[in-house]
Amino acid sequence: MIRFTYTSIHAWSMFGGKDHIQVVNGHLHISGADTVEIARRFGTPVYVTSEDRLRENIRRYHRAFPDADKYFAVKANGNISIIRILAQEGAGADVFSAGELYLARLAGVPRERILFNGNSKRDEELRMAVTSGVRVSIDSEEELESLSRIASEESKNVEILFRVNPDISVNTHPKIATGLKSSKFGIPAQSVRSICEKAMHMDGIKPIGLHCHIGSQILDVSSFSEAAARMMDLVGEIVDIGGDMELLDLGGGLGIQYDPAAPPAPSPEDLANAVLPVIERRSEELGVRLKLILEPGRSIVADTTILLTGVNVVKRAHVTFVGVDAGFNVLARPMLYDAYHYIVVANRADAEISERYTVVGPICESGDVLARNRALPVVKKGDILAFLDAGAYGFSMSSQYNGQPRPAEVLVRDGEVELIRKAEDISALLACQIIPPRLM
Amino acid sequence: MIRFTYTSIHAWSMFGGKDHIQVVNGHLHISGADTVEIARRFGTPVYVTSEDRLRENIRRYHRAFPDADKYFAVKANGNISIIRILAQEGAGADVFSAGELYLARLAGVPRERILFNGNSKRDEELRMAVTSGVRVSIDSEEELESLSRIASEESKNVEILFRVNPDISVNTHPKIATGLKSSKFGIPAQSVRSICEKAMHMDGIKPIGLHCHIGSQILDVSSFSEAAARMMDLVGEIVDIGGDMELLDLGGGLGIQYDPAAPPAPSPEDLANAVLPVIERRSEELGVRLKLILEPGRSIVADTTILLTGVNVVKRAHVTFVGVDAGFNVLARPMLYDAYHYIVVANRADAEISERYTVVGPICESGDVLARNRALPVVKKGDILAFLDAGAYGFSMSSQYNGQPRPAEVLVRDGEVELIRKAEDISALLACQIIPPRLM
Ligand SMILES: Cc1ncc(COP(=O)(O)O)c(C=O)c1O
Ligand SMILES: Cc1ncc(COP(=O)(O)O)c(C=O)c1O
Repeated sequence: MIRFTYTSIHAWSMFGGKDHIQVVNGHLHISGADTVEIARRFGTPVYVTSEDRLRENIRRYHRAFPDADKYFAVKANGNISIIRILAQEGAGADVFSAGELYLARLAGVPRERILFNGNSKRDEELRMAVTSGVRVSIDSEEELESLSRIASEESKNVEILFRVNPDISVNTHPKIATGLKSSKFGIPAQSVRSICEKAMHMDGIKPIGLHCHIGSQILDVSSFSEAAARMMDLVGEIVDIGGDMELLDLGGGLGIQYDPAAPPAPSPEDLANAVLPVIERRSEELGVRLKLILEPGRSIVADTTILLTGVNVVKRAHVTFVGVDAGFNVLARPMLYDAYHYIVVANRADAEISERYTVVGPICESGDVLARNRALPVVKKGDILAFLDAGAYGFSMSSQYNGQPRPAEVLVRDGEVELIRKAEDISALLACQIIPPRLM
Repeated sequence: MIRFTYTSIHAWSMFGGKDHIQVVNGHLHISGADTVEIARRFGTPVYVTSEDRLRENIRRYHRAFPDADKYFAVKANGNISIIRILAQEGAGADVFSAGELYLARLAGVPRERILFNGNSKRDEELRMAVTSGVRVSIDSEEELESLSRIASEESKNVEILFRVNPDISVNTHPKIATGLKSSKFGIPAQSVRSICEKAMHMDGIKPIGLHCHIGSQILDVSSFSEAAARMMDLVGEIVDIGGDMELLDLGGGLGIQYDPAAPPAPSPEDLANAVLPVIERRSEELGVRLKLILEPGRSIVADTTILLTGVNVVKRAHVTFVGVDAGFNVLARPMLYDAYHYIVVANRADAEISERYTVVGPICESGDVLARNRALPVVKKGDILAFLDAGAYGFSMSSQYNGQPRPAEVLVRDGEVELIRKAEDISALLACQIIPPRLM
């Protein structure tokens, strides 16, 4: 057993609240495993996930919401081992495609705890949802008609929720604010009643609840209480017309604290305090007994995982660039959303911060910048940088752009390290390619 | 043989200049093949490339620059069949990673016509460049030292170019303006002479030229003449110190006309007229004989290819959304750069334009919008939309985000259709995953 020593105040304060991250003899450790060792053994870049933290995160949700179902948003992280651990802890899955349904089912998520979401589902996807017996969140009246037809063709009944566009503006990056009136998602609130009424008389369809998802990386829980109140109004409208309301799905979106200098993010408990009283009061008024569903992605998986990346070059120009082996092909969030990830020099994690660097990847675009003007200790070629909080929308958004194979993922539990996704090698770039004989 | 009839003025004017695109009996055709047929046979989404147009595009460069080498920028399109066709036409390759080097060599590009570029190359990549005998573009003094060490270890000599940051501002999307002083690329112009002088005395290194790449989708060729002039000044500086200047690589970046309502883009001939006189005049003054290299990506491959995507749903909300089966997982440019792609309803390509739609993909983010408020004919579920000019930075930037397998690519020549990349199926999401036995 390793004994953890915090070798510097710096390390202590910066990881405040992250029990799975430690500094031991100058090396960054995660759940008792030396990240420098991991980088040596598996190469870089590599995503490293703490199983302990993952289990702890879902348990926090269970404690805060003992009566709600938690459907892990598979889009945040599609690793089967990770989904399986969450399933072992009782989580369900929010899936957004046939592919995600497949991952969730293979990972052992029971069909009763899966919701098939999406604003533009193929007919084959609706059919797969119907035949595999999962619930479907309906994004539009037009989709409802397709689903009814397909359910009838398959002689099945499908339980559905309506994805509502609650017209709520939240304080996050516009690309991931999904509850605005202008967004492509969901049924306008004022049309929900009439569509539900129609659905109640349709073949193969059983409406049993409402669904919304107002956005991602939301740090102000009052947006969630607002959403809960609007959704309860709609529940009331549907109960009024004799509809059956069993489920209320408030989606995901709880933010996390990426920057140690920022205020702490709200916890699942804070979320519970914001939404449960609203739901309980209105449920009582309406005389309904709703089962609550949540679809957390980021707040379950982001802080479980670090991305280790090797330093190829330190280049002095008008600023000093640190060129690493992971670019936006591996971690797209900084380029896409100007997102911040805290960086630790994993092999000198207790070194004094003395420099400013712009950390860039190997991709051919000027936008391939992971951190600008970042305060770090002295960085040298061969060092390993750890990007914290990389477990959500990290690997799942990765690409092979610029001929870069995708990285490995490893799982750490109590100091033990297991490979859960092999790194691709360059032959992966050829995987599906066919050269016509005449060109050979 | 199919006879092409332009069935409407609309079709004629919108494809002005694109000989490989036609409308026959209301269906969009590419190089004589019916795209509706292709969508039916291969499914959607699917990228469809005209071999005829591809050959024509590289030949236009040959005609405009009879004495220059053209290194196709593999990052724009990593399909081996496409690279091979270009190699058959005499093109070389600009590669940005070990993976792209591998693709180019497998496609048959001779090592003498390959340049290994990149701002953050791994030591193993430098070693691969050295052992495979290709030239290297050096991004920094620090990289130069690594390369010299590796070349000595391998007992090889490497010919190098210096990637120069010419500090030229161009009118394009900031993410792809690569010649600004603030960008991560290249050696500041004022340091090139001293670094070259140093390199001339280093083991294993032979400096033979200069390189720049000022950005992508550039529509004003005067930026290129400006770059050429600055580069020739630097050539002069190096000749002054007794350096050997054989190659001048002006990179890629020539833009194309995505929007038929915009002014036509400059042609390779326009580029030649902008840069050749500058280079010739200064070469004469300096008494050097330079071989010119160009690295076109987009202007070779963008307009050869259309992306076909199926309509899953037409949804009436505050605007009317067309939900298709390709999102930014398949075509990232609209989300990343607010890029415009002309859209044709492939199965009713001669229909009157009468509606306005916002075309969205199946991805879970509000940013997954392919076209906003676009004028189109009436669109129905089951229709096939063709996104024109999708051959550059299309498939190469694709991902499996939201559990979406990546699409197929097909090649069309004279009405014949060949599969050059199979579509992934959902099992591709599992490709490298390993579930630890204790979790099974
Ligand atoms: C419908 C739905 N539910 C849940 C989530 C997960 O959101 P987060 O990761 O912010 O918790 C998303 C994310 O896009 C979503 O679209
Ligand atoms: C070094 C280099 N050369 C050439 C290109 C190709 O540019 P384009 O596709 O605009 O011609 C790029 C694109 O990023 C590049 O980085």
